Amino acid sequence: MKMSQLAGQRFKETPAECQIASHILMTRGGYIKNVGSGIFSLFTPAKRITQKIEAIIREEMDAIGGQEVMFPVAMPASLWKESGRFDSVGSELLRFKDRGGSDMVLGMTHEEAAVHLVRDAAPSYANYPFMIYQIQTKFRDEPRARGGLIRVREFTMKDAYSFHASQEDLERYYALCYRAYERIFIRAGLPDFIAVQSDSGMMGGKVAHEFMLLADAGEDTLALCEHCGFSANIDVAECIVRTSDTADEPLELISTPGTKTIGALCERLSVTPDKTCKAVMYRKDASDGLVAVFIRGDLDVNEIKLRNYLKEEIHPDTAHEDDVAYGFCGPVNFTAGALLLFDRSLRDARGMVTGANKADFHYKGFSPGRDCPDVEYHDFAKTCEGAVCPSCGKQSVIIRKGIEVGNIFQLGTKYTAAMGMRYIDKDGAARHPVMGCYGIGVGRLMASICEARHDAFGPVWPMPVAPWQAHICALRAGEGDVRSTADALYDALLKSGVEVLYDDRPVSAGVMFSDADLLGVPLRVVISPKTAGRGVVEVVKRDKSLSLDVAAGEAVPFIRGLIQELLGEFTPA
Amino acid sequence: MKMSQLAGQRFKETPAECQIASHILMTRGGYIKNVGSGIFSLFTPAKRITQKIEAIIREEMDAIGGQEVMFPVAMPASLWKESGRFDSVGSELLRFKDRGGSDMVLGMTHEEAAVHLVRDAAPSYANYPFMIYQIQTKFRDEPRARGGLIRVREFTMKDAYSFHASQEDLERYYALCYRAYERIFIRAGLPDFIAVQSDSGMMGGKVAHEFMLLADAGEDTLALCEHCGFSANIDVAECIVRTSDTADEPLELISTPGTKTIGALCERLSVTPDKTCKAVMYRKDASDGLVAVFIRGDLDVNEIKLRNYLKEEIHPDTAHEDDVAYGFCGPVNFTAGALLLFDRSLRDARGMVTGANKADFHYKGFSPGRDCPDVEYHDFAKTCEGAVCPSCGKQSVIIRKGIEVGNIFQLGTKYTAAMGMRYIDKDGAARHPVMGCYGIGVGRLMASICEARHDAFGPVWPMPVAPWQAHICALRAGEGDVRSTADALYDALLKSGVEVLYDDRPVSAGVMFSDADLLGVPLRVVISPKTAGRGVVEVVKRDKSLSLDVAAGEAVPFIRGLIQELLGEFTPA
Repeated sequence: MKMSQLAGQRFKETPAECQIASHILMTRGGYIKNVGSGIFSLFTPAKRITQKIEAIIREEMDAIGGQEVMFPVAMPASLWKESGRFDSVGSELLRFKDRGGSDMVLGMTHEEAAVHLVRDAAPSYANYPFMIYQIQTKFRDEPRARGGLIRVREFTMKDAYSFHASQEDLERYYALCYRAYERIFIRAGLPDFIAVQSDSGMMGGKVAHEFMLLADAGEDTLALCEHCGFSANIDVAECIVRTSDTADEPLELISTPGTKTIGALCERLSVTPDKTCKAVMYRKDASDGLVAVFIRGDLDVNEIKLRNYLKEEIHPDTAHEDDVAYGFCGPVNFTAGALLLFDRSLRDARGMVTGANKADFHYKGFSPGRDCPDVEYHDFAKTCEGAVCPSCGKQSVIIRKGIEVGNIFQLGTKYTAAMGMRYIDKDGAARHPVMGCYGIGVGRLMASICEARHDAFGPVWPMPVAPWQAHICALRAGEGDVRSTADALYDALLKSGVEVLYDDRPVSAGVMFSDADLLGVPLRVVISPKTAGRGVVEVVKRDKSLSLDVAAGEAVPFIRGLIQELLGEFTPA
Repeated sequence: MKMSQLAGQRFKETPAECQIASHILMTRGGYIKNVGSGIFSLFTPAKRITQKIEAIIREEMDAIGGQEVMFPVAMPASLWKESGRFDSVGSELLRFKDRGGSDMVLGMTHEEAAVHLVRDAAPSYANYPFMIYQIQTKFRDEPRARGGLIRVREFTMKDAYSFHASQEDLERYYALCYRAYERIFIRAGLPDFIAVQSDSGMMGGKVAHEFMLLADAGEDTLALCEHCGFSANIDVAECIVRTSDTADEPLELISTPGTKTIGALCERLSVTPDKTCKAVMYRKDASDGLVAVFIRGDLDVNEIKLRNYLKEEIHPDTAHEDDVAYGFCGPVNFTAGALLLFDRSLRDARGMVTGANKADFHYKGFSPGRDCPDVEYHDFAKTCEGAVCPSCGKQSVIIRKGIEVGNIFQLGTKYTAAMGMRYIDKDGAARHPVMGCYGIGVGRLMASICEARHDAFGPVWPMPVAPWQAHICALRAGEGDVRSTADALYDALLKSGVEVLYDDRPVSAGVMFSDADLLGVPLRVVISPKTAGRGVVEVVKRDKSLSLDVAAGEAVPFIRGLIQELLGEFTPA
């Protein structure tokens, strides 16, 4: 490919709407163009990178017996009604009517389509296990698309669905897929991912993992143990906090006029937030019923845990009814009608400050075990920096941001049961197959690689996914043998199977090098009047770790050798 | 791939909804599954075929300088408002609102997205020409989806867009793309296509060609000249008919009670339809104004020609106003308010029968030139079998059905002007680039290949697009050396790079062969107790042109040689 023909423009200015490195560099480098909120077109460099990522994914999916298929983007809503998700999923599911007035959806995931495809195709236990996958466009109507390709509305995703005759077989295959994912991220140049336990969300099922790139630009919050390597999405991470050793004190009503926040309360009484008990109020979406969660003042409620416990949707209470003393609520003598829930952080606490359910008054000396006997404690808290690791028991939890680049779920029979997929088991009984599902967002993976591998001047693409393998810069091509040397090298590299970008434009060295930095090709070959005069070319690595003159006649084998070496850096063990 | 693991079922019964061979065989063979009206999922065999077709398309597009990009499936309506097509295109354009209430469309073609992507990227004449293309899912809300993959609502399409600094350069590139299309269809195993002139429809522009496979299952009607090779879609084919030599007669009012059709009129008066003149009534969509087209009784009005002449949409008149003598209309004394149009077939006619604009009366002896002086004649007729060829002048037009497998359009500046894309020309003037666009439906091409190449038992896939290259059938694998011979051959073929499907199932020869026929793999290798006992395998071509015993030890090189030979059959000259 010659740069003079490459569609797309590169520029220096950071566009106002771009916040994170991958969004900035991939916009400035002519990889992507924003079409609408969370919707992008890809220029050729990005298309080439995604094609290489997809090829890696295909190889690893095929290696674990995957069969590539294709599901529709637009589907009749009837499929989603069969599974129940037409009603249960929120407005991120894009619903519309076709010209005949039929309800349709745009696929944001394809469990229903997968079951529909194979529902009648595997009637016997002997047909199991099998896995089908596709790489296809999806649409998720995100309210807050941002971060370039990190959080979009339309995206290309590899989604795989496995079918099994037993939970044990699913678990065996799940482990296989887990390892395939490790290989994919290593091969794509993202070796520093971690896998974390995660919530299965709207997918259903119990066991799920997310593959995360640790990055400040990430939207997910992760709880990690520095000591034992435990890792979980904060959505599901168990919260264990130590209780400081305090003796019981008598319960005493104190006047705290206008002291409605934990901060104000701590300041007034000179206590630390972990010696307070707060009430966080929610309403159930369906019944509007009030839910009061009592939790230690220094902790936050994890709404995902709360939803999973209640098995229904909730939202923060903004109704502000007259019989609730907002700002002064506590578990003692809470008289308004509400479901009262107690976080585990209160179980062993004593001598705390908490609301007295009366405006401008608190209790001090509150000991939950003494003052609220016979209540159950559950884990409703978001874990935090310094919490106790649920795995090794050390007080070593740290909190980090991550970008989710893949996820795997054990779905169980949620979809096969709802959609009536059955097979006859060895014993002659009809059963529903057990499913797993496995996703990787292709565009987000590309952006994540850019997040992990860039400098101030542009992306530094790993060789296995680089848009081209070598980038020839012909400086002052009109002088001496520059053009003929560059032309000959371009032809020779193409002929030897190397993917080459050739900057043949009559532009300054400054423009040529800054464009090359933005395109991030791992190897650069500079030809100038100076090098041509000496019969050499200059071979430079994009990551600045090499800069070397090579005789023009030996350039092709030298470059090919370097490419092999750089490809080899990303071979899984 | 082993058949025991291949997802999808094959069966004998023709599903009630399937009418044409490709739909029947690809449903029965486990290639496709209907998800909703005009929406299909693809099983692995179909996915593999489409991937091979896409690879051929990519190679040929890249060979003429194409750059692969990716546009969105879902787009903000604002883009389509810029071009004017949000309003001008009918309800086949799927419009919807996203969660924020913004107007969106599903892409049915991507001229707007293409201009949006490169609008700012080619500011100088020196940036031209260039071509960008994608292979992506599209949605067209067809009211009558049918014929399996022939007429669908969701489909995968290669769509290419070229940009030029002059009409001459577009024409040069258009010819290049025409030849690339020829190569694509030949390489995909469809050498018997023809290219026809076509209407540019909603795309705009003047010159357009469609690539057609002649097939009774086709939805397009083509006018071909057996003599000179002229070919055109009937939508645009000029209609030239001979007028039989008749003398003028006096115009005479005759009573024809209840004779409202040409058939009844001809029977009553013992004349042939070409000696009658009928009136075909339309209304303009916008103004509801009446349009009467007078045309020879044996011809039909071509509504596309009529629309193009009027430059507005029309529909058949069903209003039936009182002042129009429906069934007895004619050009003489037509008093109702209407636009009167005369087809060219009337220009030299004499002595005709036509309506007298009075219930139950006709005129005979009508001579348009004498009785309707000073009218203009235009070509509004559908050409027909036996019409005069517009190219060679012989009375040799034949009518055939065809499936459109590709199309190319010279668009001019319709989109670049509407969307404000400009470049600075050599003379310093700002100009709009000239565009061409070039489409191929991937799924329809697959189905068309099946239409062209099948027998009663299944598709006969050409080697370059076959889902696998060789298909091993291990008959009675439990006996003698059958399984070990088949396993060894499977491994050896895989190792040598051959794409093999291995039927390892414990099923009868009947089931195995009928499934193999449905999968249509070009080479079959049969291993049975009989062949294994003699140390041979039986190599059979799917098209029945070869059946040969080959020593087991020589099978791999023999099969590889045959594959090369069969691939070579589809090399363009």
